[in-house]
Amino acid sequence: MTADALHPVTGLDDVVHQRVRLGILTIAHEACRVEFGYLRTQLQLTAGNLSQHLGVLETAGLVALEKGYEGKRGRTWITLTPAGTHALAAEISRLKQLIARVTLDDQP
Amino acid sequence: MTADALHPVTGLDDVVHQRVRLGILTIAHEACRVEFGYLRTQLQLTAGNLSQHLGVLETAGLVALEKGYEGKRGRTWITLTPAGTHALAAEISRLKQLIARVTLDDQP
Repeated sequence: MTADALHPVTGLDDVVHQRVRLGILTIAHEACRVEFGYLRTQLQLTAGNLSQHLGVLETAGLVALEKGYEGKRGRTWITLTPAGTHALAAEISRLKQLIARVTLDDQP
Repeated sequence: MTADALHPVTGLDDVVHQRVRLGILTIAHEACRVEFGYLRTQLQLTAGNLSQHLGVLETAGLVALEKGYEGKRGRTWITLTPAGTHALAAEISRLKQLIARVTLDDQP
């Protein structure tokens, strides 16, 4: 069986496809540089849950975390790495293939 | 914050969005009624792993499993329930929203 014959989901990477992480990557892609608290609000997560998912993405080299201060408050900013941008593009491309299959099937 | 202001991933259901389960649902949607061994090959899974994910989908009422025989060989067939069809449609709709956001951002 060639790779083309396999279903598009076999090409999805769980590190990127997981719901919360896909959210983090798309928001970081939209915003270039995004603050931890903003991500938490947008994705409706606890700080612990968000930290855990950011850890997975950082370990995979898909995001970079930068700690600093805004006034006296500690802040963490998240940016996509080039590998993260590439991984998000690959995920979106697979999702488009998947959607095309489901949608085609609905046509008469 | 209204529901519309939240990121599209907050509306994704992990039961449906998980990579393997999304594969099962889309193949079952394409094929109407799909045999266990076919799913296993298409999704490149072990029998145990596929069974586990089918269990999650069956518990959620999204697929129905039917056991029977083809000649002397035991077979399991999988069909989408109406709730499964609805859940897949909701997932696809959210993925389209997500893709639109990422793609829009790439425009000048």
